[in-house]
Amino acid sequence: MNSDKVNLKEKFQLFNQHWTPKIIGELNGQQVKLAKLKGEFVWHDHKEEDEMFLVIKGSLKIEFRDKKITLNEGEMFIVPRGVEHNPVAPEEAWVLLFEPATIKHTGEVKNKRSVENLDWI
Amino acid sequence: MNSDKVNLKEKFQLFNQHWTPKIIGELNGQQVKLAKLKGEFVWHDHKEEDEMFLVIKGSLKIEFRDKKITLNEGEMFIVPRGVEHNPVAPEEAWVLLFEPATIKHTGEVKNKRSVENLDWI
Repeated sequence: MNSDKVNLKEKFQLFNQHWTPKIIGELNGQQVKLAKLKGEFVWHDHKEEDEMFLVIKGSLKIEFRDKKITLNEGEMFIVPRGVEHNPVAPEEAWVLLFEPATIKHTGEVKNKRSVENLDWI
Repeated sequence: MNSDKVNLKEKFQLFNQHWTPKIIGELNGQQVKLAKLKGEFVWHDHKEEDEMFLVIKGSLKIEFRDKKITLNEGEMFIVPRGVEHNPVAPEEAWVLLFEPATIKHTGEVKNKRSVENLDWI
């Protein structure tokens, strides 16, 4: 058993890239990731995976085709599989993600935001 | 799509029972739960499920047979399947849990802490 506990804010200090989630844990085929977000991501969906966003610091907008929501610190949202969404962070936001280990970063969309292999920190 | 975002601290205001996790989200066969913990739980393991604890408020000790750890606010730990553990909270702690929907509260152990069907809030 890896006996290290994980301190979220310490982990966030270890990287500065935006839109490049870092893996901090894995359980039951799911991964826990941290991401720093700033600016606009890209419209995409995940055909087979639901995706959870929990805001640790700052504020994150998630645009959907028919509405948008704003998540503040301590707020979470689960985007169901197949639902197109576009995360937007006018100011830098720190976010915890829960999602299957199999998920692709930008779904089937390929663009400059796409990252193939995410790193553990 | 349920378009409600979830504010963790608002959800924590909705209940006071200790050791009775409340479900706040479900994704990919996993559930997100909130629990208020105070005192000692019970030694148990989960044969098939890894279990993640993230402390939202206060401090949580998790005893293992060969060591113990203390998680403070903003710290998380994943207890691997099959590993006996006993959560202990000397003062009330607020914790977010991430675990498979199939998990049993106290594993195969039955005691006064066991709860069969958890509620959504």
